[in-house]
Amino acid sequence: MKLHQGIFLTLEGGEGSGKSTVAKIIADWFRRQGLQVLLTREPGGVPVAERIRELIVNNEMEAMTETLLFAASRNEITKQVIEPALARGEIVICDRFVDSSFVYQGIVKNLGVELVYQINRPVLERVEPDLTFLLDINPLVGLSRIRDNGRETNKFDRENLAFHEKVREGYLSLLKRPEFAKRIRVIPAEGTSDEVARACIEAFSEWYQKRVS
Amino acid sequence: MKLHQGIFLTLEGGEGSGKSTVAKIIADWFRRQGLQVLLTREPGGVPVAERIRELIVNNEMEAMTETLLFAASRNEITKQVIEPALARGEIVICDRFVDSSFVYQGIVKNLGVELVYQINRPVLERVEPDLTFLLDINPLVGLSRIRDNGRETNKFDRENLAFHEKVREGYLSLLKRPEFAKRIRVIPAEGTSDEVARACIEAFSEWYQKRVS
Ligand SMILES: Nc1ncnc2c1ncn2[C@@H]1O[C@H](COP(=O)(O)OP(=O)(O)O)[C@@H](O)[C@H]1O
Ligand SMILES: Nc1ncnc2c1ncn2[C@@H]1O[C@H](COP(=O)(O)OP(=O)(O)O)[C@@H](O)[C@H]1O
Ligand SMILES: [Mg+2]
Ligand SMILES: [Mg+2]
Repeated sequence: MKLHQGIFLTLEGGEGSGKSTVAKIIADWFRRQGLQVLLTREPGGVPVAERIRELIVNNEMEAMTETLLFAASRNEITKQVIEPALARGEIVICDRFVDSSFVYQGIVKNLGVELVYQINRPVLERVEPDLTFLLDINPLVGLSRIRDNGRETNKFDRENLAFHEKVREGYLSLLKRPEFAKRIRVIPAEGTSDEVARACIEAFSEWYQKRVS
Repeated sequence: MKLHQGIFLTLEGGEGSGKSTVAKIIADWFRRQGLQVLLTREPGGVPVAERIRELIVNNEMEAMTETLLFAASRNEITKQVIEPALARGEIVICDRFVDSSFVYQGIVKNLGVELVYQINRPVLERVEPDLTFLLDINPLVGLSRIRDNGRETNKFDRENLAFHEKVREGYLSLLKRPEFAKRIRVIPAEGTSDEVARACIEAFSEWYQKRVS
């Protein structure tokens, strides 16, 4: 497999769907193919973005304020981390990206996907995911994984079950828009992490075949 | 003078043009007319907005990131402070508002006024200044006022003179757009603060006469 330019992959899905776990597995897989991989997530170690993130998780604020702050953070990591890696021809794997804003702020908090899209336009004009793995899972299963493993929770994790159901439905509803459906692959995520990662790689391979042919 | 709904006034202009000084004088004048006045400025004592401001002034970042952060801060103070006061029928006087973003990020930092407008649209859909006093001054005069009075400076103050010239020209260029020219009044600001405040009040009175007639 030869790549003449970078490929931008994102992982999306509710809490405990396995994004972070699967991201590592597929990053290793790409590395074994001899490719340079940048595995990142917002705020991605970028100091300003880290500070914005702290501000978001530790304060109550309007959904629109949150949307603008996420977009600010995303803009900075796009500029400092994602764009340069893509320019070097790397595989960039990002654990959550714009779709999280479309779903959490646009759909669940009712701002509307269109408005959230407009706010994120400066980012999307620079980079758009080539392929997005949507890890789809019953929220009860996802949440119990987190509980079982005692990971620290934040204000998003602690929302009630109805909230997490809305997140799941919100993600699936993105597929109604052709421009999103084009790049989003729904990956059933209740199997083992190796199974889920395998399904992502298969989806990638299929996409990649079509792209080169 | 009877007001059946609030009036939103903003003060704009370069560093040392006298915005903060004049804002106090005109606020007192309105109070002497028996009106309720809310005098504010970004970040306006709103905790989230205060933290966003700290983040902006203490970190280097892309102009677009800065624009998104200012918009986030502004969104929160609009929601928490400005809108409620206008709903109570008060005179709201804000020391800097969206025009500062149009000029500093849109014009001086070259993002374009249109893009900055789009980012601020969620705010502007809620409130738009009724009248804006643009305090116009030779930047050398403005900067020497600040030096003479030993006010603490921030990263914007410390930019070089060419920067401050661009700010002045940027503000004046907003008048080329009819939608801005409609509400912006250029107030020569090299006189005493009482003279400048008087000119603002005259501009207000003229606007107000037309509005009620
Ligand atoms: N397929 C899986 N089956 C069981 N547990 C899993 C699976 N994938 C991840 N986990 C565990 O579930 C928890 C949440 O996984 P994580 O990858 O952090 O999810 P996310 O990043 O989507 O919130 C972690 O403790 C992880 O070890
Ligand atoms: N018209 C004026 N003439 C002389 N000094 C002034 C005048 N207006 C304000 N000042 C002084 O200049 C400095 C900057 O004024 P300030 O109102 O803080 O400006 P801005 O808020 O526009 O930066 C302050 O020390 C203030 O006392
Ligand atoms: Mg994770
Ligand atoms: Mg001031």
